[in-house]
Amino acid sequence: MRIDALIRHEVMAIEPEKKIVAVKDHLSGKGFTKDYDELLIATGARPLRPDLPGVEAKNIYDANTLTTGSILKEAIEKDKPNQAVIVGAGYIGLEIAEALHLQGIKTTIIQRGEYPMPMLDRELGKRLAATLRKSGVKLRLNESLTGFTVQNGLVKEVTTDKGSIATTFVILALGVTPESRLAEDCGIALGPRKAIAVNQLQKTSAPHIWAAGDCAQSLHLVSGQPVHVAMGTVANKQGRVAGMNISGQQTAFPGIVGTAITKYLDTEISKTGLGEKELNELGIDFITVTVEGNTKPRYYPGSAAMTVRLHAEKGSGRLLGVQILGGPESAKRIDTAATALHAGFDLDQLLYLDLAYAPPFSGVWEPLVIAARLALKKL
Amino acid sequence: MRIDALIRHEVMAIEPEKKIVAVKDHLSGKGFTKDYDELLIATGARPLRPDLPGVEAKNIYDANTLTTGSILKEAIEKDKPNQAVIVGAGYIGLEIAEALHLQGIKTTIIQRGEYPMPMLDRELGKRLAATLRKSGVKLRLNESLTGFTVQNGLVKEVTTDKGSIATTFVILALGVTPESRLAEDCGIALGPRKAIAVNQLQKTSAPHIWAAGDCAQSLHLVSGQPVHVAMGTVANKQGRVAGMNISGQQTAFPGIVGTAITKYLDTEISKTGLGEKELNELGIDFITVTVEGNTKPRYYPGSAAMTVRLHAEKGSGRLLGVQILGGPESAKRIDTAATALHAGFDLDQLLYLDLAYAPPFSGVWEPLVIAARLALKKL
Repeated sequence: MRIDALIRHEVMAIEPEKKIVAVKDHLSGKGFTKDYDELLIATGARPLRPDLPGVEAKNIYDANTLTTGSILKEAIEKDKPNQAVIVGAGYIGLEIAEALHLQGIKTTIIQRGEYPMPMLDRELGKRLAATLRKSGVKLRLNESLTGFTVQNGLVKEVTTDKGSIATTFVILALGVTPESRLAEDCGIALGPRKAIAVNQLQKTSAPHIWAAGDCAQSLHLVSGQPVHVAMGTVANKQGRVAGMNISGQQTAFPGIVGTAITKYLDTEISKTGLGEKELNELGIDFITVTVEGNTKPRYYPGSAAMTVRLHAEKGSGRLLGVQILGGPESAKRIDTAATALHAGFDLDQLLYLDLAYAPPFSGVWEPLVIAARLALKKL
Repeated sequence: MRIDALIRHEVMAIEPEKKIVAVKDHLSGKGFTKDYDELLIATGARPLRPDLPGVEAKNIYDANTLTTGSILKEAIEKDKPNQAVIVGAGYIGLEIAEALHLQGIKTTIIQRGEYPMPMLDRELGKRLAATLRKSGVKLRLNESLTGFTVQNGLVKEVTTDKGSIATTFVILALGVTPESRLAEDCGIALGPRKAIAVNQLQKTSAPHIWAAGDCAQSLHLVSGQPVHVAMGTVANKQGRVAGMNISGQQTAFPGIVGTAITKYLDTEISKTGLGEKELNELGIDFITVTVEGNTKPRYYPGSAAMTVRLHAEKGSGRLLGVQILGGPESAKRIDTAATALHAGFDLDQLLYLDLAYAPPFSGVWEPLVIAARLALKKL
């Protein structure tokens, strides 16, 4: 199979019937068409930017790619700002808040919703809010960005529906949107949040056109619904599947279970499966338990508190989702729950998992297993 | 249900046909019989002690219970020994070696086999031997205890088939044997290593007699064979199942997948499923891969090397076993593999697991998943 690498070229349009793409050479400025046998769309996602006057000010940064990360780092080293506003309290917002906090920069986070990390259930989200505030971050919840006050090309003030905040720089962490315009323009079907609709082979609705990565949808194995998840792990797997299928080896990407993880200082956060909002939206009848456990027996050095919140289907006991909020060495344990979701396990199967036990690593009963045991009583 | 607690009493014999037990009251010295409706044998296991002259010397210690642990700790605090010999390099031997090392005691471990932690495959066991030696522990491999030189009731020297070692105290870490004499004496069937044979309800071969914990066997879900595993997690689960069934609630203990974990200083070790010795003994046709990975991306602070060794069934690709040897935050990841073994996953299912990724926690592809990918090529 021949693959040409055209650097500084951009595909401007696709013509699926003719199996050609219109290409622009950014170096020469010239345009031309190119034919293909199979076409892979791997255009990724772009950070969301609000359409507000002043959003192009020099001291408003994205934190989306290695490049934007480097630009931000250099600006901080050069300008030594002492205050920052972060718009959005998802993964990126929290990770940037941690980095700024560690540099001694006074940080305010504006979040439209009622708690940070909206992927979490309310109960855990509220606790996380308290943790953020305790560390010294100003968290302004239920508050929406409305504009920027710009002087000499620089934002001096962020305005919201509830007031204004003076700042020396702004970071936008509002999430991403799939870069699916090329697909949409040529009539390829889109899925949730305008991600490109694909089947488990990574095929789009158009013949000989495939899509993979942050521009494409995934199947959520717990809900059975297509979703858009812009995660490196998913993108990697989809790319592998698309590449294998295009080159004639057959394989399928089964889908995702919605696993996610992040941290803020010593507080770790993870989730897999469906949360209470998603379960309510899907109309699934479920029960919930929240367990206060420990990463290790309390007598063992380095033991940390960890909270496990578990949802299971009422009646059947099928595991639906797990969330962890805890200290060091807590959140990565979500992988056990993720694997159990892939297997379609119920609470009884979770309860008897032969998980690794020794005091430097865990208690005799993992908090996840305790959660399963308590949940069984509520079915 | 009536349960009498008889402190300082011991059951001397069981008569299953009459549904009575012969009891001795250790306080009064008197004996009597007692009837039962259902009888649970939960006699645990006892540490193996070699039948050698001098083995009862005061400075030979077991490390089996909280009590023997406390006795050892007090002896070290009082006598401040500067050298120790540990017989056996399994979990307990290694954990004691770590504790003594941290107290500055010169420690020699005698191990009959060719490497420490015989549950590991040879390749990983050899590496672990190097780690132990590098820390300053003397490791004498392929060497067997043959006797003790005792003076004034104290061991002065341990003798082996290869020489002698002067010491101020000795710790026996030779493993345990099921305490199954009561069951054996009354004709109850025994299983591997003389563990009491039970079904998944924890029923023995005798009517109305149950067994649970370190005295009882478990079903290994990967080999389908009964095994004896003396682990707190298994004992807890078996106890729960026996108690529920005795009290009329029906439940079954599915079995174990052989998960185990320990550490020596900064080196973590874990295993689940079957190792190469067990696979060869069972005559299973398998392929193996060993992957050198990292707990986190190498650029991230705290990233540590971790080796994952994976066995899968030739042809079918069914996961058979995983072993991890690595730095901090590596070994507990075995739980993902353990859960996959419970689910009966093959390599393709392992490959697409939606595991948690963020740089503070892991690389985009977990070493376990990389192992699955490489193993697929060898099927």
